[in-house]
Amino acid sequence: MKKQKLVIIGGDAAGMSAASKVRRENKEIEIIVFEKSEYTSYSACGIPYFISGKISSSEKLIVRSPEQFKKKYNIDARILHEVLEVDTSNNRVLVKNSTEKTQFWENYDKLLIATGGKAYCPDVANRDANGIFGVSTLRSGIKIDSYIKDFNPKNAVIVGGGYIGLEMAEALLIRGLKVSLVNRSEEIMNTLDPDMGTLIHKAMKNLGVTIYSNEELKHFETEKDRISAVVTNKRTLKADLVILGMGTSPNTAFLKNSKIALSEKGAVKVARTQRTNIRNIWSAGDCAETFHLVSKKPFYVSLGTVANKTGVIAGKNIAGGKAVFPGVVGTAVCKICSYEVARTGLLEKELQKLNIEYVTTTIQSKTRAHYYPDAKDITVKLIADKKTGRLLGGQIVGEEGAAKRIDVLATALTNRLTLRNIIDLDLSYAPPFSPVWDPVQIAARKLISQLGK
Amino acid sequence: MKKQKLVIIGGDAAGMSAASKVRRENKEIEIIVFEKSEYTSYSACGIPYFISGKISSSEKLIVRSPEQFKKKYNIDARILHEVLEVDTSNNRVLVKNSTEKTQFWENYDKLLIATGGKAYCPDVANRDANGIFGVSTLRSGIKIDSYIKDFNPKNAVIVGGGYIGLEMAEALLIRGLKVSLVNRSEEIMNTLDPDMGTLIHKAMKNLGVTIYSNEELKHFETEKDRISAVVTNKRTLKADLVILGMGTSPNTAFLKNSKIALSEKGAVKVARTQRTNIRNIWSAGDCAETFHLVSKKPFYVSLGTVANKTGVIAGKNIAGGKAVFPGVVGTAVCKICSYEVARTGLLEKELQKLNIEYVTTTIQSKTRAHYYPDAKDITVKLIADKKTGRLLGGQIVGEEGAAKRIDVLATALTNRLTLRNIIDLDLSYAPPFSPVWDPVQIAARKLISQLGK
Repeated sequence: MKKQKLVIIGGDAAGMSAASKVRRENKEIEIIVFEKSEYTSYSACGIPYFISGKISSSEKLIVRSPEQFKKKYNIDARILHEVLEVDTSNNRVLVKNSTEKTQFWENYDKLLIATGGKAYCPDVANRDANGIFGVSTLRSGIKIDSYIKDFNPKNAVIVGGGYIGLEMAEALLIRGLKVSLVNRSEEIMNTLDPDMGTLIHKAMKNLGVTIYSNEELKHFETEKDRISAVVTNKRTLKADLVILGMGTSPNTAFLKNSKIALSEKGAVKVARTQRTNIRNIWSAGDCAETFHLVSKKPFYVSLGTVANKTGVIAGKNIAGGKAVFPGVVGTAVCKICSYEVARTGLLEKELQKLNIEYVTTTIQSKTRAHYYPDAKDITVKLIADKKTGRLLGGQIVGEEGAAKRIDVLATALTNRLTLRNIIDLDLSYAPPFSPVWDPVQIAARKLISQLGK
Repeated sequence: MKKQKLVIIGGDAAGMSAASKVRRENKEIEIIVFEKSEYTSYSACGIPYFISGKISSSEKLIVRSPEQFKKKYNIDARILHEVLEVDTSNNRVLVKNSTEKTQFWENYDKLLIATGGKAYCPDVANRDANGIFGVSTLRSGIKIDSYIKDFNPKNAVIVGGGYIGLEMAEALLIRGLKVSLVNRSEEIMNTLDPDMGTLIHKAMKNLGVTIYSNEELKHFETEKDRISAVVTNKRTLKADLVILGMGTSPNTAFLKNSKIALSEKGAVKVARTQRTNIRNIWSAGDCAETFHLVSKKPFYVSLGTVANKTGVIAGKNIAGGKAVFPGVVGTAVCKICSYEVARTGLLEKELQKLNIEYVTTTIQSKTRAHYYPDAKDITVKLIADKKTGRLLGGQIVGEEGAAKRIDVLATALTNRLTLRNIIDLDLSYAPPFSPVWDPVQIAARKLISQLGK
């Protein structure tokens, strides 16, 4: 019998998690990975800390090199190979070898699309200018670092107030740049409700970031092909370095003419097995859609955790096993200097769109017993179903020790717990770790009393 | 109609939580609290940090004074009043007024027993000697502090290797004493499995504590009524300060001749409403039994969280409402110098006793992404049901940022999650907070692969 061949497009978290999983389950199948960049299996989430200098070398972000994959797993990971097209009728992909500047068709029996995402940027003038960077690949991180070394920029502008923008703001402040942030809405970090986003807004201002709220990117200006200014609907901001922080888009342009179904946002549509609409094609990671367990709707999110998990699920199924990825509840966490931010579940505006009646409360507490040294501030917001008291979302802003408490709320959401259930949880307590009622339980108690239950 | 009268015996966490809850629900009922000591509503868990000097004054541990309860809640909390006897046939309690050295009977319509616990000590010679302390009341904490100031002891011996003993070991090291610990079993902290306890054992040794394992307390020696030595089955240890760390016993000796049902260990037996076998009598906190949600058996534990929660439940029911406390999963957490220890669920030896077939694994990981500065060590042990893969217990030993992860496992236990469910949880990730797979998920992945599922 002819040996089966699996082709994987994309050699980072999802692709290589899948490849390794397939190999663990099946020693025979041939595995070829085409990776556009020079690097496989790295932590893109670590890039801001490489830029800031907290991590001394970009090498430290690399989990495993192509050589290691070859040796340990017999996986043929070919870097600097970009897939330009998928021909689903003939089970083959068109590959560009960037080193040798050649193209060739490669056949597959099974295909995994794991091309990840890239920083979103609207179609404005000069958006490809030198000095404008997204932060979605190790290559982009290394380029930013080199650019700072080579050109010694003074004025950085972050366009967009999401996680990556804020993490990069910290990194660039540490590198000694003046940092401004242009944000379309009133409060930054629109993955939080505005009343919580405002806490981060104030924190960023305290750190020395100049924030221009309610301003929209119009275009970029350049001098000698390098970025010189960011133009908004209200002003022109001098800029010799720009970071795109407006979210992530799936890297799926090359699938346009394939028969693979994409969502409106361009993410690959998948079942919970990570299989696409084509029988022998799977997708995982930042290029694919996932499912939101609270809204019960398809959901797009670009996160290392989801990439790793969906990669493993795809790998298991590709190898002939049976696995499903149930979905996400929208958990995310972020640190900016001493501030910690976390969220899970749905926002008020999302619930309004879904016509779900909810109640909400916000409490201030401490990360440790109030009398214990270094007890830090923590603000917890909870949102619950008005009828049933079931948790629908949680947001946390605070300092050291605050954010990781979101995991209890994420676990609660997955298991459809009510506020009463949360109060009853047997969470750990000792003065160095928590007040006697954990802040998430203090919030649940307050919200349940609002509900009169 | 005659005004109803509620008598509460014990004015700390459970008693005062109940009193406040009753008052919030019912403005009319008369509430009298008899508290043996000088203090109401304080954090007993904070005592080691008062002894160490981390907390500058014992006052900081007091949440609310009798005067504040009177003013804010119209609760008549009488300190230095000890209840000596409960006469359930006539609905009255015999009270000793320690200030005026008088005794009187007080009638009640409803009664709550919330007398807490005290440090256990076997019936050995000189166990009441000056210089031997339990750490269960604020009074005991203040006495230890005064004793150290007055007598300047040099050699402290902790008898027993539980949480309180270890927290006190740290405190006494900070106060400059030489600290030894006598422990009946091989490893200290027998609320962990021995393979995890050994990590704490080593840590305590590194901190400079001399540990005598597999030694049993025989008696105490005194000089002029003050402690001078601890005698074990193997040696005589010079000691001018002794801390009892062998666990907590419920304060229920005064109920001996009442008709209130007690467990074998002497804890008040209660339904999930906190009601005792007597219709108009409830009990909550460290003097009462609770229920273990994993073993599905009655369980005794002395914890501030449980005291607060069961107090609120009792209060609600006393006020005529309907509330049940579902039980605990055995969560506890502790910090000793830079080491963090946490546990939840059942131990191997408990599972063996219950004849439950289990599998177990232990993993080493980091509290942050491996490349992130100050990523600390964390060891996670999981125990799961061999047939179903359902989580049965978890133990964590590590440094900063390690222990609070136990809360996800506690939530998982309450909701009867399997290892697969834990892997699927949407836990928060960013490099400053966690590796991409949270250590509890790394452990779940390893254990599930052992199960071949």
